[in-house]
Amino acid sequence: MNGESGDKQQENDIAKQVAVLVQQAKALQSAGSSLSTRLRIEEQALSQQAVALEKKIGRLRADAFSALEKDELSQELAEKIEEDIQRAHGMVCEGDVGALLPPKFSGRFLRMLLGPVNVKAAETDVRFKAKEEYNAYRDRTAVLFLLFPCILLLSENWFWQGCFPALPVQAYQAWLLFFYTSLALRENILRINGSNIRPWWVYHHYCAMLMAVIALTWDIRGHYPDCKKKQRGVHLFLIWAVMQGGAMLLQNRYQRQRLYTRIALGKAGRMDVVWGEAAGVFGQLSLLYPLLFLLQVCQCILGFLFVRTVFRKDSEWQVVGCGLLLLIMAIGNFLNTVETLVAKMRIKSRMKNKSLSQGSSLKTL
Amino acid sequence: MNGESGDKQQENDIAKQVAVLVQQAKALQSAGSSLSTRLRIEEQALSQQAVALEKKIGRLRADAFSALEKDELSQELAEKIEEDIQRAHGMVCEGDVGALLPPKFSGRFLRMLLGPVNVKAAETDVRFKAKEEYNAYRDRTAVLFLLFPCILLLSENWFWQGCFPALPVQAYQAWLLFFYTSLALRENILRINGSNIRPWWVYHHYCAMLMAVIALTWDIRGHYPDCKKKQRGVHLFLIWAVMQGGAMLLQNRYQRQRLYTRIALGKAGRMDVVWGEAAGVFGQLSLLYPLLFLLQVCQCILGFLFVRTVFRKDSEWQVVGCGLLLLIMAIGNFLNTVETLVAKMRIKSRMKNKSLSQGSSLKTL
Repeated sequence: MNGESGDKQQENDIAKQVAVLVQQAKALQSAGSSLSTRLRIEEQALSQQAVALEKKIGRLRADAFSALEKDELSQELAEKIEEDIQRAHGMVCEGDVGALLPPKFSGRFLRMLLGPVNVKAAETDVRFKAKEEYNAYRDRTAVLFLLFPCILLLSENWFWQGCFPALPVQAYQAWLLFFYTSLALRENILRINGSNIRPWWVYHHYCAMLMAVIALTWDIRGHYPDCKKKQRGVHLFLIWAVMQGGAMLLQNRYQRQRLYTRIALGKAGRMDVVWGEAAGVFGQLSLLYPLLFLLQVCQCILGFLFVRTVFRKDSEWQVVGCGLLLLIMAIGNFLNTVETLVAKMRIKSRMKNKSLSQGSSLKTL
Repeated sequence: MNGESGDKQQENDIAKQVAVLVQQAKALQSAGSSLSTRLRIEEQALSQQAVALEKKIGRLRADAFSALEKDELSQELAEKIEEDIQRAHGMVCEGDVGALLPPKFSGRFLRMLLGPVNVKAAETDVRFKAKEEYNAYRDRTAVLFLLFPCILLLSENWFWQGCFPALPVQAYQAWLLFFYTSLALRENILRINGSNIRPWWVYHHYCAMLMAVIALTWDIRGHYPDCKKKQRGVHLFLIWAVMQGGAMLLQNRYQRQRLYTRIALGKAGRMDVVWGEAAGVFGQLSLLYPLLFLLQVCQCILGFLFVRTVFRKDSEWQVVGCGLLLLIMAIGNFLNTVETLVAKMRIKSRMKNKSLSQGSSLKTL
């Protein structure tokens, strides 16, 4: 009897606690949904204002530009206006308000791999952290990008008597596949978060991913008595990869410097990314642009050599496919670099008059 | 003179508009940051309450369970309590409040590929949409998963005179790599969004990704006069893939039915995923579990056959590597299925007494 009443006591105790729990959970749920509703209303109002202001910024910028072209605006005022507009742009399109703007671009690639998930960070710090982590990632991987082919090339003669075994080269290709996939994913996410990254560089990564998959299926073990002939393509590709790795390291350093300068001058947003564009300072321009063009010429020659094997009787589709992709990437890279260069030249020639009249006040910055 | 005054007019006009713009942008920016600050404070308060309630839910559930074990609680009341707790759990851990809970798991794989981006959806509808899209994705891809090897196997005899060319098989492997990568990404995202998916199934996808990369590097073109011998592994793998595709289709159908029933009964959250577990209804159990075990036995045999080639003089590391991965996956799948089955049996045996005394009221649901 005593035990049974103890059971009843225990039953009531737990049942009571659970009833309280359900009440608390209900209260919390309604508090949560009320917060969510209020938030949605307030966010919508701010979002509409942000969209209107963004349009106005575009209109005023165009007005100022055409006024400057028609000489209706003095250089000095035009610059002050551009500075102000840039400042307004930063306030509207970045930070807490920028997060409320509708995304300008829906990444098909992201939707395909991740599903319909929202990768736009609501909090500004998180978005900047993502950007900084992306820069750090590029720095880290550029070192690997340089080291990996260097080690392969050195080992070719030191350990492997002039002939690559298949495994290390395939491991390198698998790493390239991983590397370009993660770059494509990260850059798509950055674009959604408001970075101005050029679309070409993302397409470039898709091409590079495809090339890595094709290279993985390519059996480089020598069918001939002499593996040298078959592996000549691998050898050339690795040399080109070393060059690219070096260029990437330089680029990353210069671009980061330049971006910090531009952010400090208020000319760039903190979410901007400058891929494959050279630094703004002339001393850096004169080193990086020739290097980039040289790299593109080499890429083009490599692609041409690969494609040419189609006429050999022992031609392999993987080599021809990689060659075509190399040519596409070289042409795309070239066009994008030229486009950037032309835009820069135009700005430079306009700045020239100004710096002649105003002196070199900027140099002291 | 007239033109110059027109210029001045134009200058003033634009300058004035830009000044207004900057003021508006400033106002919007401060409104945005004030909203963001208020939001953060309110969210933090709710989040703390949610964490406390979640702990309480865990404690009460344990209490009720131990009381039931010690026979201090009647079956009937225990079930009502479990139902209430489940309801409270749904209110706290899902929906708007659930989004405020700290993530239980930080996906290393996601961080590696995407960088430190937040993929936890703030809005409940978006999270459920992601879940539903994931189910639709599994349905779509299960069809492909079945069709791809079927077509390869049929073409083997119809078009290719019993010998696979390398390209279609490699295309299939590349698709598998893409498929498992996207599954791993999506399931990691679902886990962050509160899905109860078993960690093993994500690890399984990593193994499958690695296997696809290894298979890509494997040259299946016959070095021998008879390609049959070399391609026997490919043939067996494709047959096993067909079986797996069929099982996936069945599983998806049953699991979705079961999940909907469980959600309707309030026993599962809307974010739950049931991978590789069979349906709860006995008629489905009796079909799916034997099928799953058969599949695992076949996977094991396949892995063993692949690994055994290590003793052949023309053994290839890719075959051995794939074999090891198949064995690991088979064992992991088996252990996880058994674990689920044992848990189910335990619940079933407990339910049995109840259904004997209460009649089959649940069956009418």
